[in-house]
Amino acid sequence: MTNFADSLVEQIKAKGTPCVIGLDPRIDEMPGFVLSRAMAAAPDARRRTAISVFHDTVLEAISDLVPAVKLQLAFYEQYGLEGIAAFQDTVETARRKGLIVIADAKRSDIASTAAAYANAYLGRSEAFGVSSRVFDVDCITVNPFLGADSLRPFVDCCKQFGKGIFVLVKTSNPGSTDFQDRVLADTGTPLCERVAAMVHEYGSEAVGACGMSSIGAVVGATFPDEARRLRQLMPNAIILVPGFGAQGGTAADAVKCFKADGFGAVVNASRSVTYSSISSTTSLEDFIGTVRSRTMLMISEIRAALAERRD
Amino acid sequence: MTNFADSLVEQIKAKGTPCVIGLDPRIDEMPGFVLSRAMAAAPDARRRTAISVFHDTVLEAISDLVPAVKLQLAFYEQYGLEGIAAFQDTVETARRKGLIVIADAKRSDIASTAAAYANAYLGRSEAFGVSSRVFDVDCITVNPFLGADSLRPFVDCCKQFGKGIFVLVKTSNPGSTDFQDRVLADTGTPLCERVAAMVHEYGSEAVGACGMSSIGAVVGATFPDEARRLRQLMPNAIILVPGFGAQGGTAADAVKCFKADGFGAVVNASRSVTYSSISSTTSLEDFIGTVRSRTMLMISEIRAALAERRD
Repeated sequence: MTNFADSLVEQIKAKGTPCVIGLDPRIDEMPGFVLSRAMAAAPDARRRTAISVFHDTVLEAISDLVPAVKLQLAFYEQYGLEGIAAFQDTVETARRKGLIVIADAKRSDIASTAAAYANAYLGRSEAFGVSSRVFDVDCITVNPFLGADSLRPFVDCCKQFGKGIFVLVKTSNPGSTDFQDRVLADTGTPLCERVAAMVHEYGSEAVGACGMSSIGAVVGATFPDEARRLRQLMPNAIILVPGFGAQGGTAADAVKCFKADGFGAVVNASRSVTYSSISSTTSLEDFIGTVRSRTMLMISEIRAALAERRD
Repeated sequence: MTNFADSLVEQIKAKGTPCVIGLDPRIDEMPGFVLSRAMAAAPDARRRTAISVFHDTVLEAISDLVPAVKLQLAFYEQYGLEGIAAFQDTVETARRKGLIVIADAKRSDIASTAAAYANAYLGRSEAFGVSSRVFDVDCITVNPFLGADSLRPFVDCCKQFGKGIFVLVKTSNPGSTDFQDRVLADTGTPLCERVAAMVHEYGSEAVGACGMSSIGAVVGATFPDEARRLRQLMPNAIILVPGFGAQGGTAADAVKCFKADGFGAVVNASRSVTYSSISSTTSLEDFIGTVRSRTMLMISEIRAALAERRD
């Protein structure tokens, strides 16, 4: 059985960058060449066609540059069944291109219900005597609010199937201060550090040959001071860093989530790479060129920030 | 625009009970008459057929008895695209029968991503110049861990489309003590009470003619002492009470979430009604009889506990 952390670290080393591109379908913001391809499809296949064509094109532009892509499930779900079918299309294409697939699902539930989510994305489901993969991504994001027992089925699935999770520890939005930063009376430290301790504890069950664990964490680029502290509390966790680019996190902020050796985190950018400077008249060639050059710019910014950082 | 709280309270009064039945597809536990119907379908339609036939039968048994059903999305998602198609089938059937449909989704995200989830379940989504309903349920459960700004798009959607949310405040699992019960240094009260205060604040934006709000809360039946206190902190919130039945919460525990007038909460039971005492040889007639009698038993237990309670 492969270990998810080992697979991700191997891809990071192969591509020479920890940058990840986020795939968020927003049909009305897609370039004209995508929308005209979609309009040629049957009315009940237009959404799926638009999303699949758009992401096939993005993947063509970036798959030799980055180790992984992050698919945001909310944006797929907003297009209903067609959106979910397009999610499967994009997962298949990305995996065929050798990319690690992160489903940004932020799922949470308890007991057998949490196990059902884990089976849907990381494991297998049974029906009529047949066991099969369902969405079959490499890892998902999960919300820890329901407590340690709610994470257990996900951790078990990671161990059984060589998959990974990223537990929300400190999110990139301003409102993450509302609960995640609240100082606890017994320890005098914020709630997010308590979550970090749980991630570290579960993480010890799934450490790979690379020394990192398949139980990772989400820490936003927008709170660099907290990031430095959380990095210390979870020495084995790979940190998924959102909030770079469109949300205002800088490269210097994002690299606070890395270990001293320059590894241990992946940084995601979505909109700023795939929807910026795109108009209805952007051609296929120009779109690929823009996405590719924005990805390379992000890669060089993160590389420079990693080289320059002093903690 | 109708108000969700008004619609729910009207249904509760019409049916004379606050009991809600949970629909969790577990194909391998369904009775034989459902599985044989499914096996007659094409291989790629068997899961959808099993789930839809099973829930059509459950709905036939209970729709004149209860005000609402709660569909657990995790169990649908574990069956992939077919599961999601079956989710849509069940939502349509339940709405046609006049039932309020609660999607137990426990979704959470930030900014435009949270808005995408809100649009998927409560609002509308736009593509190709057309705006359409997507999953079109009456309300969903949401996870508050990401803070007040993460709930804002859901609250706005409730106000715009006459829908509702139930915010997780104190869940029914043992691990809910890990984070939700942590005492905060500044207030000396547990985190769940802080979440309750936020629910109450948002709730004031969506109070219906009935005096209750479309912004509700989830409080497990398994923690009756906390339930009493949380009930006081959210006087306008309708509380969705899971944990009754299979999870060990008693009727006396569950009614702690009600107001003194006997309203203000709905109690859910899933497995204990729809999968208990069912075997592969249970006939259609026996299945309907069992589900119906278990529902009536739950209704009478909750009614008796409401009549007897002393706070």
